[in-house]
Amino acid sequence: MAVGSGELGTLHTVGGVRIGVASAGIKKPGRIDTVVFELAEGSSVAGVFTLNAFCAAPVTLSKKHLAAASPRYLLINTGNANAGTGASGMADAEASCAALAAEVGIAPEQVLPFSTGVIGEKLPVEKLVAAIPAAVAALSADGWERAANGIMTTDTRPKATSRQIEIDGRKIIITGISKGAGMIKPNMATMLGYVATDAAIAPDVLQAMLDVAADASFNRITIDGDTSTNDSCVLVATGKAGGEMLTAAEGPAFDSLQSAINEIFLDLAHAIVRDGEGATKFVAVEVAAAKDVSEALKVAYAVAESPLVKTALFASDPNWGRILAAIGRAGVDGLDVSILTVHLDDVLITEKGGRAESYTEAAGAAVMKQSEITIRINLNRGQHTETVWTTDFSYDYVKINAEYRS
Amino acid sequence: MAVGSGELGTLHTVGGVRIGVASAGIKKPGRIDTVVFELAEGSSVAGVFTLNAFCAAPVTLSKKHLAAASPRYLLINTGNANAGTGASGMADAEASCAALAAEVGIAPEQVLPFSTGVIGEKLPVEKLVAAIPAAVAALSADGWERAANGIMTTDTRPKATSRQIEIDGRKIIITGISKGAGMIKPNMATMLGYVATDAAIAPDVLQAMLDVAADASFNRITIDGDTSTNDSCVLVATGKAGGEMLTAAEGPAFDSLQSAINEIFLDLAHAIVRDGEGATKFVAVEVAAAKDVSEALKVAYAVAESPLVKTALFASDPNWGRILAAIGRAGVDGLDVSILTVHLDDVLITEKGGRAESYTEAAGAAVMKQSEITIRINLNRGQHTETVWTTDFSYDYVKINAEYRS
Repeated sequence: MAVGSGELGTLHTVGGVRIGVASAGIKKPGRIDTVVFELAEGSSVAGVFTLNAFCAAPVTLSKKHLAAASPRYLLINTGNANAGTGASGMADAEASCAALAAEVGIAPEQVLPFSTGVIGEKLPVEKLVAAIPAAVAALSADGWERAANGIMTTDTRPKATSRQIEIDGRKIIITGISKGAGMIKPNMATMLGYVATDAAIAPDVLQAMLDVAADASFNRITIDGDTSTNDSCVLVATGKAGGEMLTAAEGPAFDSLQSAINEIFLDLAHAIVRDGEGATKFVAVEVAAAKDVSEALKVAYAVAESPLVKTALFASDPNWGRILAAIGRAGVDGLDVSILTVHLDDVLITEKGGRAESYTEAAGAAVMKQSEITIRINLNRGQHTETVWTTDFSYDYVKINAEYRS
Repeated sequence: MAVGSGELGTLHTVGGVRIGVASAGIKKPGRIDTVVFELAEGSSVAGVFTLNAFCAAPVTLSKKHLAAASPRYLLINTGNANAGTGASGMADAEASCAALAAEVGIAPEQVLPFSTGVIGEKLPVEKLVAAIPAAVAALSADGWERAANGIMTTDTRPKATSRQIEIDGRKIIITGISKGAGMIKPNMATMLGYVATDAAIAPDVLQAMLDVAADASFNRITIDGDTSTNDSCVLVATGKAGGEMLTAAEGPAFDSLQSAINEIFLDLAHAIVRDGEGATKFVAVEVAAAKDVSEALKVAYAVAESPLVKTALFASDPNWGRILAAIGRAGVDGLDVSILTVHLDDVLITEKGGRAESYTEAAGAAVMKQSEITIRINLNRGQHTETVWTTDFSYDYVKINAEYRS
């Protein structure tokens, strides 16, 4: 299941980026599971990565390579996460970078490796290495949709989006892909996301842009509260659109780019939620008038991750008592339940610590039947608003995750 | 579903405690949903209550009454939680206390009210009030098992336990009941729990005893991470066994009582987990060699509440990578994954950041097939050990909670 149409729309090619895919047969024979990105020389590359202490070998190695050299290639495999694999996992990740580097004639440090799939099983690195020449041979500028398909695991559909903007009379493209459907509660990063623009942006500015965009998108979604060991997101600026290099995180050009990149990231993050494992609903939890960002997020995540709220959403049951209970246990100091309000879309359900006088079960039920719902919580105690996005909790979530390895 | 036999064993009567039940028809006609406890004059009573900010009207009123007077009666109803009901909910709770007080000739402040069931719907207080005379007429010393049945909601079986100990040559009885199967992550309290002893214990000592016992039992279990609005636990000491009043929280008599009371509480807490909504497994998560209690509990709860770990438990799939991922995201500062170990019962699954050399899938699968499993995590960085208890996550959990109000 998935929520919404999931149509990809036009994916503009990005000057300076070519993509090739291949089948290494890592988990299943014949499945496209290997993706190579080639980035033009002189591209700026920024990355954010999972904060999970059990981060995967490729995450550790990508961070190291990013600090040491200018990346020219990204190497991504699905079917195996190469996480919880100790020293041999690191050797495998290094071997895969070395193989790609040798194939294309660069240094191994110029390859960033990424893996996604089952945790704790040895990466069949010889299969991955064997598929690299085919992926390199297939490199082409229009490979974005094939790459979006190639990085899927339990995803039911590819996730990709594209924008064209104009800066100083110059046409700028931003295109990105992502994957993820379970083990989704990114922490300063995401599942896997790859976004590229042909704008010219200095590396430190690009990193700042990525941090802002990831924080407002991937760091605001949760499907099951489980942070992956492999979350990684990369933003590339090739500079092929021409124009002056953006070297400061301010000004109209920066603002236009940041705004377009934020939109791209939010599209990709929402696409992940819409394709959440077993999802039948796409739910925004908006917490307004909080004292600060932290308490807004505490309340939003308590509601978004409550199994009881999520099963009620699955049942289309306006059991709003469960929303109140989740707000109440969120750990907000001195929360005054008598002044907060809760709406389902535009239907006021709670005020003065209880059911709103105007509320009717029919009105609540009508909203809950929708496939897209906003739970709006107004704490009435400050100026901050934050939104997180999540899904319901269905039989299929249990089925998908009970049968994942079988 | 439920794990283990659930047989109650002998429930000793407690001198000074009589219990009566009745049917008020609050949610379903004919169902026993009203329980009255009568406590002998001079009994000490201690209580712990939910920390959920949206706590129910009866919780607020019980705390107020407990501070104001010596309780003589407990009035419990199921079928409606009287939570999220604002000012009218408080009026209903007060009316129910007043009705019982009038029936038995005491002050309303001497009644502690408790409610459990659906949140956010008005308590049909007139039905509850009408059932009080029948419950009072039914008061008898051997009402414990009927009370255990009478406080059930989604529970599939009653929860009760009893101990007889000897202190200074005097026979002392401790008997208790509890209820709860979902919305279970107690916070300084529990679902509903009622434990009584005929020992003579001063109120402040009794409260200290209750705090210790609840913290080591009800505050160490989680089914879905959702803290109820109505959690309450009461410990009563009637003094009817005779002997000197225990006035200090130390000494051999105190130690014997605390130890027996801890056992009673742990029995009742485990009974709740075994009867967790949709549970097919009873799982202990033991975190050893942590730097302090807080980090041990962070890791234990991250594992115990991970939907991915819980669905793997349901599938009997030794997908231990999910356990590592949960440990890794628990938020422990400077966690060194290369020195920690994880066992499933006695099977070593993880060491040196990856799969243990001695591990075989067959050995892991054999443990996962059991209905009772201990996940043992050794952080190898300190002296503290904590254990929490939980269940798996099954289709039936979703079913029970999707259909709860229908």
